[in-house]
Amino acid sequence: MLTLDKVYHARYVLKQVIRETDIIHAPKINPEASVYLKTENLQITGSFKVRGAYYKISQLTEEEKAKGVVACSAGNHAQGVALAATKNGIKSLICLPDAAPISKIEATKSYGADICLVNGVYDDAYAKALQLRDEEGYTFVHPFDDENVIAGQGTIGLELIEQLPDMDAVIVPIGGGGLISGVAFAVKALNPNVKVYGVQASGAPSMFNSVRDQKIERLDSVSTIADGIAVKEPGANTFKYCSEYVDEIVTVTDDEISAAILALMEQQKLVTEGAGAVAVAAAMFNKVPIKGKKVVCLCSGGNIDVTILSRVIKRGLLMSGRTVSLMIELLDKPGQLRDVSKIIADMGGNVISVHHERTNEGSAVTGCYLRIMMETRNFEHVEQIKKALTDNGFKIAN
Amino acid sequence: MLTLDKVYHARYVLKQVIRETDIIHAPKINPEASVYLKTENLQITGSFKVRGAYYKISQLTEEEKAKGVVACSAGNHAQGVALAATKNGIKSLICLPDAAPISKIEATKSYGADICLVNGVYDDAYAKALQLRDEEGYTFVHPFDDENVIAGQGTIGLELIEQLPDMDAVIVPIGGGGLISGVAFAVKALNPNVKVYGVQASGAPSMFNSVRDQKIERLDSVSTIADGIAVKEPGANTFKYCSEYVDEIVTVTDDEISAAILALMEQQKLVTEGAGAVAVAAAMFNKVPIKGKKVVCLCSGGNIDVTILSRVIKRGLLMSGRTVSLMIELLDKPGQLRDVSKIIADMGGNVISVHHERTNEGSAVTGCYLRIMMETRNFEHVEQIKKALTDNGFKIAN
Repeated sequence: MLTLDKVYHARYVLKQVIRETDIIHAPKINPEASVYLKTENLQITGSFKVRGAYYKISQLTEEEKAKGVVACSAGNHAQGVALAATKNGIKSLICLPDAAPISKIEATKSYGADICLVNGVYDDAYAKALQLRDEEGYTFVHPFDDENVIAGQGTIGLELIEQLPDMDAVIVPIGGGGLISGVAFAVKALNPNVKVYGVQASGAPSMFNSVRDQKIERLDSVSTIADGIAVKEPGANTFKYCSEYVDEIVTVTDDEISAAILALMEQQKLVTEGAGAVAVAAAMFNKVPIKGKKVVCLCSGGNIDVTILSRVIKRGLLMSGRTVSLMIELLDKPGQLRDVSKIIADMGGNVISVHHERTNEGSAVTGCYLRIMMETRNFEHVEQIKKALTDNGFKIAN
Repeated sequence: MLTLDKVYHARYVLKQVIRETDIIHAPKINPEASVYLKTENLQITGSFKVRGAYYKISQLTEEEKAKGVVACSAGNHAQGVALAATKNGIKSLICLPDAAPISKIEATKSYGADICLVNGVYDDAYAKALQLRDEEGYTFVHPFDDENVIAGQGTIGLELIEQLPDMDAVIVPIGGGGLISGVAFAVKALNPNVKVYGVQASGAPSMFNSVRDQKIERLDSVSTIADGIAVKEPGANTFKYCSEYVDEIVTVTDDEISAAILALMEQQKLVTEGAGAVAVAAAMFNKVPIKGKKVVCLCSGGNIDVTILSRVIKRGLLMSGRTVSLMIELLDKPGQLRDVSKIIADMGGNVISVHHERTNEGSAVTGCYLRIMMETRNFEHVEQIKKALTDNGFKIAN
């Protein structure tokens, strides 16, 4: 059973291993509230997951330790288990679907785990992990539905209470629910007045649905940029704790998550993964009642692939008018490209790419199209450039 | 005159205003050393500059405060002065060249400064600021060559000595030299055994040259991605302190700085600007003797434009084999695009963009080119894809 004693014990055990991550004021996230960030993206391994994994593994018997542990994950849990096992001096084996990104595999290896690549998807890797547990006597480290794992995550709640004793609320991402179960349990035990809000991705609302319907429900499929919280079904324990201790659960869209990732980079100089940014997304887009309140957003992790990050930035720039792609209709005669280039340069647009297309469905035989992508200052600047082009007789097709 | 007393006094004054930023272990930056990061990119305003600006302004007489301050900068110093003045309840005016990025102007305004846009370049804005000082009686807040500004920056040295008492060395960016003067003075005063290394961008080596030649030298021009340290001439005071207290000054290239920015994002989840990453670049590329040592890299700031960041990521991905652009020669017959697409898909390449060019200088009349950009895992993966294409009879033109 989860007790406050256990969470305090976890904190004592974790003290020499993990970082007590900083709390940082983030005044621009939501000007109507006083928003702080708990920076678990700056935790060792880049995620809070190491807390639960380490505490779980530290509490195994000597016999269990001698046999080693097995886990199933392509993400932060894998890295947490690998590091925790290595630091406890025991062996770990991580089962992953064979399509897992090579970067995640390499990261997990680098923390000292053995890797078992399983043909198929996550569920196949999970089945393989359980099979190895039964055959080899390994201890299976569940990513969330385990009292000791939850106690480990709960240490964040103890830190929050000390770091910001007068907080009104804490906003926490929910995947399987291990993190919020621990945090809510610890925070409510010490100060029941603090509100605890949970956030899921709208493409993976398993806990949201389950708590709403007061029974555990399984999603057929999940789809979200926040892969770290794309969980099909809550655990029995985490469902119970969420039902009892969490004040409200909300969802955020991928576009809202992307905007939060970009805001954290630009305003706070922090890299977060999708799952790590959902609490901030909820605060930014007023999904929870925080007006006038002092509130902590738990930034749970930062392990985002830079190619994804690059796409998030690209989309964020387009959505905020800082890059634009214009399709300009030209007459098929010399000098048109020169004229367009001059207008854009005069207006301060910074051209990134140019494509000149001679034929195009629906265009006249004598016409052609120029697609120009450029850096701009904001939407107003985009409109000024468009106006300068149309004032000079060019048609803009989009 | 700079004294340790003054630096301690600055720390006392700053205590309620600035964050004592965290020190974070960064094990992968240089595996042969024990590298820590002082995260001044997470300082309020996104840079250490607020320390010096705030202490300077706090020490003005009541008469000086009543008249207000003027400064010249398009970057971190502007934001530091603006916030410091506002927090001290006095007026600030920031002179900027009128080509300054709108984002910087908006950020400076948001901290409460009035803005004076000056026709021309930095030197023109600087002249205007001095003119306004003389005409209006404002106090000019120099970005680096001022004892109180230096004392403010020196508070970082006091924090370092406490946060990592057994450090062997600290690596510090140098622009005008205010930061390193303060840090070196404070650190050496308390523990002369700690080495202090300075880093400049190879495109703006003003202090590097001046200390080497033992006289202040002015560069005709500067060019670097690290715009925050693109300074043409050291100050008289900072030149003196650097000559006396800094053990060695080195330079890093823009490519090395870009690699450091990317490493900090991927490994440490931290966004840094060019100037903020030069110390890490020096550690990564073994510019200073840190093998086996415990060393702190000062990450001085994080105010980088996301469009620049996006370019740094793009370049970093290309340079590490995680995206590639291939120009493939096709025969001009149906089915070629299908065949190429299938080979790439089978090999696990993730296509981002495709351009099909019918005519190309030097290509046969019957030939055409396909330019495909794709996401790849690493250079080995790129070579595998290239080999699969050539094995199937396609020529790769680059």
